[in-house]
Amino acid sequence: MRFQRAAILGVGLIGGSVAAAIRHAALAGELVGYSPGGDAERARELGLVDRTAPSAAEAVRGADLVVLGAPIPAIPGLLRDIAPAIEPGALVTDCSSTKRGTVDAARSALGAKFPCFVPGHPIAGRENHGPTAARAELFRGAAVILCPQPETAPDALERARALWRELGARVVEMAADEHDALFAEVSHWPHVVAYALCGAIAAGERAGDSQRFAGGGLRDTTRIGASSPPMWADILLDNRENVLRCAQSFETELRALADALRAGDRDELIRRFGAAAVWRRGLG
Amino acid sequence: MRFQRAAILGVGLIGGSVAAAIRHAALAGELVGYSPGGDAERARELGLVDRTAPSAAEAVRGADLVVLGAPIPAIPGLLRDIAPAIEPGALVTDCSSTKRGTVDAARSALGAKFPCFVPGHPIAGRENHGPTAARAELFRGAAVILCPQPETAPDALERARALWRELGARVVEMAADEHDALFAEVSHWPHVVAYALCGAIAAGERAGDSQRFAGGGLRDTTRIGASSPPMWADILLDNRENVLRCAQSFETELRALADALRAGDRDELIRRFGAAAVWRRGLG
Repeated sequence: MRFQRAAILGVGLIGGSVAAAIRHAALAGELVGYSPGGDAERARELGLVDRTAPSAAEAVRGADLVVLGAPIPAIPGLLRDIAPAIEPGALVTDCSSTKRGTVDAARSALGAKFPCFVPGHPIAGRENHGPTAARAELFRGAAVILCPQPETAPDALERARALWRELGARVVEMAADEHDALFAEVSHWPHVVAYALCGAIAAGERAGDSQRFAGGGLRDTTRIGASSPPMWADILLDNRENVLRCAQSFETELRALADALRAGDRDELIRRFGAAAVWRRGLG
Repeated sequence: MRFQRAAILGVGLIGGSVAAAIRHAALAGELVGYSPGGDAERARELGLVDRTAPSAAEAVRGADLVVLGAPIPAIPGLLRDIAPAIEPGALVTDCSSTKRGTVDAARSALGAKFPCFVPGHPIAGRENHGPTAARAELFRGAAVILCPQPETAPDALERARALWRELGARVVEMAADEHDALFAEVSHWPHVVAYALCGAIAAGERAGDSQRFAGGGLRDTTRIGASSPPMWADILLDNRENVLRCAQSFETELRALADALRAGDRDELIRRFGAAAVWRRGLG
């Protein structure tokens, strides 16, 4: 047994799946869940955790693993709440989609205990959410990004690596700023694009017919437009500068395509579509 | 046997799949293929057609069904080539993604024979192309749009309906202009968006890392960005006015989202994402 007690703070899709995967791999003697709403109780009913705790600090007391699965705006408060209760030698890690903000919040909230915190981000979102969407195999084959800081304890980092590998993920390490710039591009900005595509169609006169005649292309292109609005508002706001940089390069490319179309410049369209298609085919 | 001889002009993904589906449903005594390049010969080797013809007119002679599966720019010339050879009572139909241009070209090229032409569009594109991508079940459950004209012979329309139903499709009729406006929105413009997303990432400094860390969201959102550049340049140019109207509403929505993000307006982001998500969830 790698951990005696794992505390999962926030047991929605991600936190609940971490709990399920830890149980499936038999990595913890006991799983304790906490959430401010009804998710923890639901997670207990679903068998994702063994019991719930009345507060985050209570959940963390006696735990040698603490996983933050809470939404971004809840993270700073949660870190302040648990700071006094974190046990010596415990590993604390998180699952947030942005890393710079979480790292700053953790450094400020945890103080002398900050070395036990290993910032993490499993690349395993889905458009469903809540504990009922949790699955033990969610991280199998997924990448998990860890962003260790200069203060991070080598032992904590090593245990975080081992934990994610045992949950089936491949672990990659990078700087928090590089993480945020990269994920603005491969995840955060594409969500804005999908929302804009859905929003423009929804506001138009063919909102109904377009649902009726949507083919596989539109279905795929807009799938993440069904994602949780508050969750994505918070991710985007937290990574605003990087996302707005992506907005700029996207708008430049989009304008070039619209200009070529308006001008009837077939060669230019084919040249730009070609470069795009080469990149996409390389994605496999 | 519904048809004695079916001529398939253009035997790529769509034309080849029509041939395969006709054979699978045993709807034609003989299948003849024609293409200006090597597709027809390849289709014959693959067993999609029984034989190839040296010219479009030769393919059409003696055929009581003619299906145009050629790319948009080839359609007007093809129609002029076959016009004298179309047999009395034959049904001629097409599969092009735009309908206004095809209808105008057919009316002008076919003259007195125009009533035998039933403009059609099976909603069954994929990002693969060529006869090797053809599949008999491509149209099963797909919608096929027919855009009959005032001159269209009722008998030709009835046979076109029956043909597509026997290939497994559900047939919907609408005006050509309405078709083009609707498909600009649900298919043509989303292709531009996917190409722009891929193109912007491909031109940036993280083109390689973004391939490595792309999750399911980016994969889905960009999938149609791997589609054939010349084919899509031609579709977009043919439906330019409708597509540019979509560009406008998309850019308006995108700018509203970027402005809300820049201003840190969480409520406005959630409101707009919410309207988008409601539409997308209605898509199923």
